[in-house]
Amino acid sequence: MSTVVNEVNRVTSENNRADQPIYQKLCDAVQEATLLARIQHLLEWDEQTKMPKAGGAYRADQMAYMAGLVHQKQTAPEIGEWLDQLVDSPLADDPTSDTGANIAHLRRDYDKKTRLPQSLVEQLAKACTLGQQVWVEARNADDFKKFQPNLEEILCLKREEAAALGYEQTPYDPLLDDYEPGESTANVARVLSELRDALVPLVQAIAESKQRPDASLLARSYPVEAQESFGIAAAKRIGFDFGAGRLDVTAHPFCTGLGPGDVRITTRYDEHAFSDAFFGILHETGHGLYDQGLPRKHYGLPIGEDVSLGIHESQSRMWENQVGRSRAFWEHFYPQAQAAFPAALKDVAKEEFYGAINDVRPSLVRVEADEVTYNLHILIRFELEQALIEDRLQVADLPGAWNEKYQHYLGITPPSDADGVLQDVHWSAGLFGYFPTYALGNLYSAQFFRQAAADLGDLDASFRKGDFSSLLSWLRENIHRHGRRYSPAELVERITGTPLQHEPLISQLTAKYGEIYGL
Amino acid sequence: MSTVVNEVNRVTSENNRADQPIYQKLCDAVQEATLLARIQHLLEWDEQTKMPKAGGAYRADQMAYMAGLVHQKQTAPEIGEWLDQLVDSPLADDPTSDTGANIAHLRRDYDKKTRLPQSLVEQLAKACTLGQQVWVEARNADDFKKFQPNLEEILCLKREEAAALGYEQTPYDPLLDDYEPGESTANVARVLSELRDALVPLVQAIAESKQRPDASLLARSYPVEAQESFGIAAAKRIGFDFGAGRLDVTAHPFCTGLGPGDVRITTRYDEHAFSDAFFGILHETGHGLYDQGLPRKHYGLPIGEDVSLGIHESQSRMWENQVGRSRAFWEHFYPQAQAAFPAALKDVAKEEFYGAINDVRPSLVRVEADEVTYNLHILIRFELEQALIEDRLQVADLPGAWNEKYQHYLGITPPSDADGVLQDVHWSAGLFGYFPTYALGNLYSAQFFRQAAADLGDLDASFRKGDFSSLLSWLRENIHRHGRRYSPAELVERITGTPLQHEPLISQLTAKYGEIYGL
Repeated sequence: MSTVVNEVNRVTSENNRADQPIYQKLCDAVQEATLLARIQHLLEWDEQTKMPKAGGAYRADQMAYMAGLVHQKQTAPEIGEWLDQLVDSPLADDPTSDTGANIAHLRRDYDKKTRLPQSLVEQLAKACTLGQQVWVEARNADDFKKFQPNLEEILCLKREEAAALGYEQTPYDPLLDDYEPGESTANVARVLSELRDALVPLVQAIAESKQRPDASLLARSYPVEAQESFGIAAAKRIGFDFGAGRLDVTAHPFCTGLGPGDVRITTRYDEHAFSDAFFGILHETGHGLYDQGLPRKHYGLPIGEDVSLGIHESQSRMWENQVGRSRAFWEHFYPQAQAAFPAALKDVAKEEFYGAINDVRPSLVRVEADEVTYNLHILIRFELEQALIEDRLQVADLPGAWNEKYQHYLGITPPSDADGVLQDVHWSAGLFGYFPTYALGNLYSAQFFRQAAADLGDLDASFRKGDFSSLLSWLRENIHRHGRRYSPAELVERITGTPLQHEPLISQLTAKYGEIYGL
Repeated sequence: MSTVVNEVNRVTSENNRADQPIYQKLCDAVQEATLLARIQHLLEWDEQTKMPKAGGAYRADQMAYMAGLVHQKQTAPEIGEWLDQLVDSPLADDPTSDTGANIAHLRRDYDKKTRLPQSLVEQLAKACTLGQQVWVEARNADDFKKFQPNLEEILCLKREEAAALGYEQTPYDPLLDDYEPGESTANVARVLSELRDALVPLVQAIAESKQRPDASLLARSYPVEAQESFGIAAAKRIGFDFGAGRLDVTAHPFCTGLGPGDVRITTRYDEHAFSDAFFGILHETGHGLYDQGLPRKHYGLPIGEDVSLGIHESQSRMWENQVGRSRAFWEHFYPQAQAAFPAALKDVAKEEFYGAINDVRPSLVRVEADEVTYNLHILIRFELEQALIEDRLQVADLPGAWNEKYQHYLGITPPSDADGVLQDVHWSAGLFGYFPTYALGNLYSAQFFRQAAADLGDLDASFRKGDFSSLLSWLRENIHRHGRRYSPAELVERITGTPLQHEPLISQLTAKYGEIYGL
């Protein structure tokens, strides 16, 4: 334990920094801000998982206060001054060195953050905390109008944020940049439309196929406690360290880092929907494995952090889909699943189960969508949130617009707002520009997985034996250990030799579903 | 929810205070410090109940940082200046008015706190966080030596603290004053010895009695899940609001306030020790009821806070003992207990059960002790911690001294340090001067309960019907709603008409145990 203290304990009070070299002062100040930001993560995690309802208002005050404090620390004028002195120093010469990457990222982050007034940061934090609380109530009551004023306020503040950050094409650009640094709205729109053009014929062919798996067996009784133990066992087996993490229950699953050695994932259980919790757990475990694989000695600095949400999502989607929905994975896990859920699975052959978990059909809820149609859910959100931010769509008209798009892209209309526009936490939390990173994650994951298979040989043979360590080591080596040293585009090119492309994903889906649906 | 926001949200950033009257500025700054202190409570609660082990080192850094920040806010020079201006103002004229009580307490707290250097506060917070982690390990391993260096460091820092605070008689005085403001070591020693002199003949008479209840029935199988539901149901019934609180599991039970509307209690379960968790839950619920009854509109200011640890303990002990171990209580709850634990209790008559939960015998573990011998456990700790703080006893000699005292006072010697000197979290958390408040709590609770019965008439008749609301209302009216308006001594005198005395406790115990043991 004391080793970790020595490694991590870089936070000294301001008075003790006087005699340090400038770069060390910079790191120290940034790690101090991170330490406080991680306290914010705890306040949020607790709010979503444990806090009694009546604690909400005071918690909102605390979160707003801490958001302001973190912002103040991150935007302290001396950080700007130190960066001014460092950007032309030899420490910054090699942008992929520890010091060079840190300085470059801190410069960019600082410039972006100092454009936001602290009062706006505090208002946003408070509006989003209350927004999430009201969203939970509105979703439970299937009452969008209850949430409407909160969303209007949040949008108003997000537009202020975009204006303060500045943009050329659309106010959506600077918001997207928060989650996928360097990406543009126009480019994401182009990539996603290429993906859509290639997906539509596949989805159509699957829809027309006479060969259909029976997914109803996943709606049998899967007792919640057994789901929890089975999910935890699978997360452990693929490498999640529960001595440095936890799994809890929330309305909307997420993964959050509270510190080096403390990564928390959440899920939600439905006795009659096996896939929801299980693939949700694999998904969040993928995020968690990335966080647990980041270099601890750089904790709190850019090269100790994840590259982007898209790269983060590539990790969760790979463990959820390329691994978790593969035949080889279930050759190892299916006997255990039958033992855990005898009532549901004792008369179900492994191949039937494999078909069921890979059933493709238009559905209402994004987090339960199959890996083929999933990207259409993202397209809908991406288009709607652009329209909201650009003020082309009013919040009052959002449920109607949502339902129209679902009818248009997926041929179905949500019977209720709870299963429609109220299903995701993101907007209530002010996370505009976040959704497209899910689709980018799918594209990255396919590209990375193809390369891993090329580098490591027969991955399926390992999976069949319940051995996931070679893939995890490959991810640690090629992605996790670098932190933010490379940009998403650099990382993809460095690892796979090609820029981001949709071909690997389409090719994997075509091969897999061609077989399942006899195309 | 928005009502509570308006009521509580008094925290404005420093820049916004310029135009406020001085008293409002003072309240604002103090409530800001409280808001941060409650974040510290969350960091601690989470560390004890949920945090994965590997998160400990970083958490220690966060807790040390926040301790320093809270101390900094509480000791900001402008608070001292505002207080200087306010103490002679009309607002301070009536020391029992809202403004007068706040100013008087803040003056006293400020003067005490400004005597501590921030570096010492930070060192203490860090040493105590690590101390608690090591204590858990040492206790699990029954290895005092593992914990010894941590305790030595903590003691060294506590002596520094006492020296910085200043004292005339003993360094223990200023430490005791932290928990029972205004009390002196000499006075507590006197009261406790009076109590002991009256207790010893009673304990002896009980020991010599041939009429003994069979307590072994409490060691039958009480499934943990049933214990949890039964405990929660009882806590709810006596008035704990689970919409504004939680119950979780920890090594050492506690109650902590995270905000208005967020009071958390903890317990620990042992399938074969019914009393541990159940009376532990009643005890912590008593604390929780006090916290839930404090005036919300003054949250974060002295008159929104509890009077002292002794008064706090009087609430927990009253619900645990005067209420929870009464015959009337079980006339309501026993049928439910039999339904919850059929295997253990179906053949047990209510009177047998009543005898079992009131079994008096010397035992090793304080938190499991009966209400008669309990105060002897406190005496041992009180004497040992005085000796440690006064450097009359070395930490290396502590286990031996502990065991000697147990032999001397209770006629038993712990078979292991885990059941002996390592049983309590307090010293590992730096809480020296805390233990005697448990005994004061017992004395206060007997005195208050006698008065409540005099005021309310036949309390037993209400308890038999499962109605605890009249007692809770009495406590709310006479104690909770006043916050820190009156000192412990003033409160006791105001409510009961007499100063603190040991007679009510001895009289209650003599009557009750006289009957049970046929004395």
